[in-house]
Amino acid sequence: MPAYHCITLLTDYGLEDGFVAACHGVAARISPETRVIDITHLVPPGDVRRGAAVLAQTVPYLPAGVHVAVVDPAVGTNRRAIAVEAGERVFVGPDNGVLSWATHGAGGALRAYELTNDKLWLDPVSPTFHGRDVFAPVAAQLASGLDLAAVGTAVNLDALVTLPQPTRRIREGGAEGEVLTVDRFGNVQLSVTAIDLDRLGVRAGSTVAVTLGRRRLSVPYRETFGSVPPGELVAFVDSAGCVALAVNGGNAAQRLGLPPGAHVRVTADQAEI
Amino acid sequence: MPAYHCITLLTDYGLEDGFVAACHGVAARISPETRVIDITHLVPPGDVRRGAAVLAQTVPYLPAGVHVAVVDPAVGTNRRAIAVEAGERVFVGPDNGVLSWATHGAGGALRAYELTNDKLWLDPVSPTFHGRDVFAPVAAQLASGLDLAAVGTAVNLDALVTLPQPTRRIREGGAEGEVLTVDRFGNVQLSVTAIDLDRLGVRAGSTVAVTLGRRRLSVPYRETFGSVPPGELVAFVDSAGCVALAVNGGNAAQRLGLPPGAHVRVTADQAEI
Amino acid sequence: MPAYHCITLLTDYGLEDGFVAACHGVAARISPETRVIDITHLVPPGDVRRGAAVLAQTVPYLPAGVHVAVVDPAVGTNRRAIAVEAGERVFVGPDNGVLSWATHGAGGALRAYELTNDKLWLDPVSPTFHGRDVFAPVAAQLASGLDLAAVGTAVNLDALVTLPQPTRRIREGGAEGEVLTVDRFGNVQLSVTAIDLDRLGVRAGSTVAVTLGRRRLSVPYRETFGSVPPGELVAFVDSAGCVALAVNGGNAAQRLGLPPGAHVRVTADQAEI
Repeated sequence: MPAYHCITLLTDYGLEDGFVAACHGVAARISPETRVIDITHLVPPGDVRRGAAVLAQTVPYLPAGVHVAVVDPAVGTNRRAIAVEAGERVFVGPDNGVLSWATHGAGGALRAYELTNDKLWLDPVSPTFHGRDVFAPVAAQLASGLDLAAVGTAVNLDALVTLPQPTRRIREGGAEGEVLTVDRFGNVQLSVTAIDLDRLGVRAGSTVAVTLGRRRLSVPYRETFGSVPPGELVAFVDSAGCVALAVNGGNAAQRLGLPPGAHVRVTADQAEI
Repeated sequence: MPAYHCITLLTDYGLEDGFVAACHGVAARISPETRVIDITHLVPPGDVRRGAAVLAQTVPYLPAGVHVAVVDPAVGTNRRAIAVEAGERVFVGPDNGVLSWATHGAGGALRAYELTNDKLWLDPVSPTFHGRDVFAPVAAQLASGLDLAAVGTAVNLDALVTLPQPTRRIREGGAEGEVLTVDRFGNVQLSVTAIDLDRLGVRAGSTVAVTLGRRRLSVPYRETFGSVPPGELVAFVDSAGCVALAVNGGNAAQRLGLPPGAHVRVTADQAEI
Repeated sequence: MPAYHCITLLTDYGLEDGFVAACHGVAARISPETRVIDITHLVPPGDVRRGAAVLAQTVPYLPAGVHVAVVDPAVGTNRRAIAVEAGERVFVGPDNGVLSWATHGAGGALRAYELTNDKLWLDPVSPTFHGRDVFAPVAAQLASGLDLAAVGTAVNLDALVTLPQPTRRIREGGAEGEVLTVDRFGNVQLSVTAIDLDRLGVRAGSTVAVTLGRRRLSVPYRETFGSVPPGELVAFVDSAGCVALAVNGGNAAQRLGLPPGAHVRVTADQAEI
């Protein structure tokens, strides 16, 4: 009986090479019965923060599994490789923070191990492709029932690298935060959440004031982008529970020129009250 | 025993976010044994017509299954969500026409239901991500054997939204139609079919005259693009039975500047006769 | 019992159309139990050499299977379609060299057959989509246990089309070769291997001189790109055993302007000795 229903993969490997398939192949040779679900392989090269955000927002919808995330610009240097148990899940990847938001979201780390048991790895190990040679074989063996403690040496949970949580606070009657991600549609996801706006008494159906640097925009706050006419800007609560800015049928990120990390402030639109 | 051999997914979600994986995950949690085949997730955002064309042309080669298509610019508004039975297949998605050509191709709708049974959905439902919260869980339950009538309220078949069929007619000795799609190779697929040209007495091996607005081109009509020298334009019957324009080793869409919807007329090349 | 654990697919079909899904669907209808692993579908259109390189570098990590590769600019002309057994594997595709490097890497062709048994194919066969109509159904039947000899007529192994191996030689104290591929990260893979440099006495930790046309660069030769400061050029042995040039956190192919096929010469850096 497999210990986990699936392995999931998130990387910055892209789709034009054979890198992802090599990971699938290694896993399939070790654990042929385990389903592999690709989260995405189009994380911008080395963008640990983006990888962490996509992983954390997707994992709640995935079966209990072994979740491998490889955004690993320091591969082959002395950065640690880890496996972390959280809830019913195990996260496997480099200890550079890419796993940290998803681990937190899954209830927090229960146990963590440094991958030091090289008997589980391919031989030889390429210094630049631990996804194929270390992470995939370890994940496949965990999926097949290997005890987590067999992967290596226990790591003190306090010693795990964590990414700082995105800025998010209520201050002077406004919700302040930052641009978290931009999706395929150009929707701009903020670290500000539905709960924050709710706490400020801001409800869907009203208008919000969004301050971006020196710009201040009045934006309708609606249930969905289709609630405003085509081409118009709208704020809504996205599928991860975050406030997001969209243009109905258009691209808000392009229109607003908002990169991840940009500071934003959202308030009720006083002009309206 | 699963009722269907597979679930298939077609969306405009792109591949850089975790949206597609969330749908896979939701389906796998409900119906772990069901195979999921991705048709494409690179439909241009909101391009219902393109989604409908790719779905209709691919479905005949897929196992009998639950075919989910989500190109859904009006998600979260009062557009209807539906499940439609046609032949051995069930189509699930928004009632905006994206399912209509494939339904027609599968023999036409036998039964249709509005998705109103929210017991089958995730809770809560995001107003902007029905793929994950409504369509995937309903599809997975249908794949596992849920009776179609359990998904909601019966809909009169005449009330289903259908996209107009692409223009296509024989007139004054020519086959008239429009550009249907452009594929990865830049091949320009017309709504004019092999049957149309056959009816006009135009056979592979001859030359056709293609009229595009004010332009008139003489183009060899061959079995395949490899039948003309590299860099030359050719008309051929593509893998969906449509007449298509290609450049051998090149990109016909770029050379001709033909967007989907552009009007075309194809005749035997009189100069040649 | 299936004869092979998986089918793998490598094509230049792209991901925006339904072409790949049609191949998956055809295989799933014939052999529902067989896992399909996508290697890549983003080989540049018609780039047989790139397809051959990715296939050969990925196959060693895949389960024993039926490996379909379709980069097939001459589809529908009189180029031969083949199935070739090598080691525990079967390669299926056009006889244009795309299979040749992987076949060689798997131990060399043991038997080869031209696909002539049209009873195994879909009917009708599109002249431009043999992936769906010929290769996928043949591969699925092989995966399900069909004897290889049933696919068609035996072909003399000497008659198979092979791509010339990339240039690679030791001359006048240097390793000469060419740019083999460029990956998603912009890492430039050379045909020069770790073994070549080792034979020249060049070891990781030293500096190499890389000659590119008239340019001559001194480049640190390290275990991984993370061993040099961000933004700096580095040579390393990549995950396929080839010497590669990278920029830590950047794109070496863009910086160096090196297309596949460009001539390179690597020596110990004399200045350093």
